Amino acid sequence: MDKENNRPLILIGNDDGYNSAGIRELIKIARRFGDVVVAAPLNHQSGKSCAISMDVPLRVKLISSEPGLTVYAISGTPADCLKLGLDQLLDGRTPDLVLSGINHGYNTGISTLYSGTMGVAFEGLVHNIPSVAFSYGSFRPDADFSPCLDFIHNIVDTVIHKGLPQGICLNVNFPKCDGEIRGVKVTTTDMGLWVREFEKRTDPFGNDYYWMTGTYQQADVNDHSTDVHWIEQGYATITPVKIDQTSHDHLNEIAEIFC
Amino acid sequence: MDKENNRPLILIGNDDGYNSAGIRELIKIARRFGDVVVAAPLNHQSGKSCAISMDVPLRVKLISSEPGLTVYAISGTPADCLKLGLDQLLDGRTPDLVLSGINHGYNTGISTLYSGTMGVAFEGLVHNIPSVAFSYGSFRPDADFSPCLDFIHNIVDTVIHKGLPQGICLNVNFPKCDGEIRGVKVTTTDMGLWVREFEKRTDPFGNDYYWMTGTYQQADVNDHSTDVHWIEQGYATITPVKIDQTSHDHLNEIAEIFC
Repeated sequence: MDKENNRPLILIGNDDGYNSAGIRELIKIARRFGDVVVAAPLNHQSGKSCAISMDVPLRVKLISSEPGLTVYAISGTPADCLKLGLDQLLDGRTPDLVLSGINHGYNTGISTLYSGTMGVAFEGLVHNIPSVAFSYGSFRPDADFSPCLDFIHNIVDTVIHKGLPQGICLNVNFPKCDGEIRGVKVTTTDMGLWVREFEKRTDPFGNDYYWMTGTYQQADVNDHSTDVHWIEQGYATITPVKIDQTSHDHLNEIAEIFC
Repeated sequence: MDKENNRPLILIGNDDGYNSAGIRELIKIARRFGDVVVAAPLNHQSGKSCAISMDVPLRVKLISSEPGLTVYAISGTPADCLKLGLDQLLDGRTPDLVLSGINHGYNTGISTLYSGTMGVAFEGLVHNIPSVAFSYGSFRPDADFSPCLDFIHNIVDTVIHKGLPQGICLNVNFPKCDGEIRGVKVTTTDMGLWVREFEKRTDPFGNDYYWMTGTYQQADVNDHSTDVHWIEQGYATITPVKIDQTSHDHLNEIAEIFC
């Protein structure tokens, strides 16, 4: 809570940059529930995962400040921004909630691993703060987020009043659709992969270069528990995810092999 | 296996760059077991996690080629390098093993999340290839890796002959020590965090900037299952880690709250 006015404090990040359409929609919703500080990248930082900057210093630019909303743009990755926000920009306060997004494009399936949007939520979770990442299935800079705004309002409302279980954050994805989203499903992360990932080209000087591209291949198209499956069916998906990647189930087996 | 000579094919990456001392030691060991292709960053890429490059094209430089060893340097992140290696540089072959490192510095505890060294092993795991990341507790560019080389030989020997269980890769860390490493422990990832993460400075023009620094704070100093604990005791640690971050234990609870 904010010390002075008892309103919850909400820290917002993203990977599309502090001035993207998606973060502006998320800020509007968050302000209904508390005071908002934005610590978001100065520039586009998609695909940055949980990357951090150790070999270059970071710069912070105060973009705007008004009662209930302060916006900082930071010259780093999404995780840098969250770390710097928590450590330096909140006058020692701990936020009640970390929000990320609304990302322009899905962060479902194995893309969870590469997602800067998720890097923000994971960093919130590292600091034991209830954290939710939101993504919408349109990459367009002028995407119309209206189909998902009521859902986001309700999720923020629930999390700010009830918190989240220890050790997890939420990865929330909304299907791109012209009409209504069909409902909400709690899902697993599809463990597929990107195939045919690069397109080789030749520059005007005769040198090769490679663009990352690719096609997503689901792990098992008959697995109806996954985020990728339900997004395709027109549902919003909520996936509880954790940062402890230890495979506890394998500790004994690995010890038998290597010790 | 290599189609022509039936020797195993080993793909090696890292985050310190293709010419670091650590990767050169790892190449020497790997060559005892198979033909080696190196797909490693042209430049230092520490802290890059699983970051990928979607908005800049990648360049590949053939550094050297001799029987049993080909070295490529790539203008991207550790995960980029692995992806490009697998997709474009192996003539359609699938490696029998992916190795990463030897990293100059630990990748224990929550640093697993930010580690480019682990980004390589995770990318190998995405492609369902047995994958192992090695890290040593010295950041020095001229670190002496001799205490860990026999251990690495034995781990590579085991994994290349027995494979690894489905769904996991190994995060292996070696303590910095002058004498002998005391043994090997199979461990969990310490879920601590970095505190006091930034140092604020002022540049010669009067503008503020921030260096990432910080102190690591263990999750629970009485938890003797963790990598951080056993490294401090002088043991090498092997942590089985997975890329499926879904918290399966929370699916029902989250469905009750949000659906």
